[in-house]
Amino acid sequence: MSILVVGSVAFDTLKTPYGERKKILGGAATYFSLSASYFAKVRVVGVVGDDFTPEHEAVLTRRGIDIRGLEHASGKTFHWGGEYGENLSEAKTHFTDLNVFENFTPKIPTAYDDSRFLFLANIQPELQLDVRRKMPRVALVGGDTMNLWINIKRSELLETLKEVDILLINDGEAKLLASEHSLVLAARKILTMGPKSLVIKHGEYGATIFFNDGSHPFRAPALPIAEVHDPTGAGDTFAGGFMGYLASQPEITPAVLKQAMFYGGVMGSFTVERFGPERLMSLTREEIDERFNFFRTLTHLD
Amino acid sequence: MSILVVGSVAFDTLKTPYGERKKILGGAATYFSLSASYFAKVRVVGVVGDDFTPEHEAVLTRRGIDIRGLEHASGKTFHWGGEYGENLSEAKTHFTDLNVFENFTPKIPTAYDDSRFLFLANIQPELQLDVRRKMPRVALVGGDTMNLWINIKRSELLETLKEVDILLINDGEAKLLASEHSLVLAARKILTMGPKSLVIKHGEYGATIFFNDGSHPFRAPALPIAEVHDPTGAGDTFAGGFMGYLASQPEITPAVLKQAMFYGGVMGSFTVERFGPERLMSLTREEIDERFNFFRTLTHLD
Repeated sequence: MSILVVGSVAFDTLKTPYGERKKILGGAATYFSLSASYFAKVRVVGVVGDDFTPEHEAVLTRRGIDIRGLEHASGKTFHWGGEYGENLSEAKTHFTDLNVFENFTPKIPTAYDDSRFLFLANIQPELQLDVRRKMPRVALVGGDTMNLWINIKRSELLETLKEVDILLINDGEAKLLASEHSLVLAARKILTMGPKSLVIKHGEYGATIFFNDGSHPFRAPALPIAEVHDPTGAGDTFAGGFMGYLASQPEITPAVLKQAMFYGGVMGSFTVERFGPERLMSLTREEIDERFNFFRTLTHLD
Repeated sequence: MSILVVGSVAFDTLKTPYGERKKILGGAATYFSLSASYFAKVRVVGVVGDDFTPEHEAVLTRRGIDIRGLEHASGKTFHWGGEYGENLSEAKTHFTDLNVFENFTPKIPTAYDDSRFLFLANIQPELQLDVRRKMPRVALVGGDTMNLWINIKRSELLETLKEVDILLINDGEAKLLASEHSLVLAARKILTMGPKSLVIKHGEYGATIFFNDGSHPFRAPALPIAEVHDPTGAGDTFAGGFMGYLASQPEITPAVLKQAMFYGGVMGSFTVERFGPERLMSLTREEIDERFNFFRTLTHLD
């Protein structure tokens, strides 16, 4: 079953303690779709510029990702620049050049109308809302955002959140969005803004899903990793594994949601092994299942 | 089976976003022994001053804790003062008045000679080593320390660590001790300093146990809590639940160690509900088991 994702398809220029890369393939929708492609059919809505080459496209199409909704516009591809210090949990953004995303009006190919799920990956909240309104019949809307939009487009974001069923953000974003110091209090507040469930990702410490219907929260682990080379896209990758797994199941039950939390962490653990989305380009189902079993061993009592 | 604990029995003066307390009962050995008392027989070695009253003693004896090894000396009881900001993970120490602990030479009552386990709770490393050497026949030595000793008594601490089988410290302490930014690299280094296993506690994100024999690490959760009133003693409480559970089992197997990781988190989750060690004074086995089951539901796939 299929997922439509809208979000940045971009270039990243980044620096971590393990090295630097200039204008490598990146973007929230890129990481999301590569990750989800191991579980479900993924369709991308976005826009790239003249500097986006056939080689870049092939990275997506080789994974069976449907990029008919990825427009080509005159101008430059979205370009993000950032840096990670020794504390790899937070990127310091140097620049976010929206470029062709600045004046982008998403057009949904008719072929995408029957998408079962929608994921509003990280991009301006108005764009997210626009796509959501163009896809009224999806069964589930997932979403992500970042501190930039929480800070500079809060009211637009709050409008968008009313239409999101499940929001996936990190600790810092949750506390910023809710103006709370406590994760649990932040979750309670965010669960009144629209989302029925909320996944808060704690970087190297895993992730927690909270529900607004009184169900107990659930915590999934992250893998203890000696050297994270590049944490870029780990969160988007988590979302892709999470939503992708959900899309692969006939019904979304509590058991399925818990498995999805594990698969999100599993996929995230691959992304951070190398720079950019490289590791996601050539995983096998076997590697994913092996990692999933390791995650179970990591957390389950005998 | 019994555990001997040496560590501070003290007064704490503290401030959290939820209030202030002056000279309330505290200390690493206090929290440890109260916690462990729900699982095993606990014996305390330490020293208190003239300001330590029968009411304070009763808190320990009511839980069946053997305090024949708790000396009374002329002078003031150990007194720690600190504060927690909105970020409750790290206490800012205002003062650490060793007082009667300054010139304390531990004497082990003969009745304690048959203690099965030894826990070197947080106190000067030379005192920890002294007690360890006076208890050569214990089956297992656990230990804890804090940033203060890592910074000002590093060489004494390194001597002590050679005699510790299992060390329980938090993220910041692990990275400081190992001079590493990565938790996993820190763990690897610490596992060459003496300990065969290392528990690193991540505060609200749970804890991870690492082994130096090639066994896989294991991660236990912490409880998502809306309002942590006072995090003081949570780590010592974890250690008490962990060691206490180990002491209650006939053999220390991998399965038992994993359960112990859960019980550590379970006990810690009670401590932080109220100021000081209050919550630990009157728990029931039922409450502990119920919380344990919740921890399982929190993390286990169906």
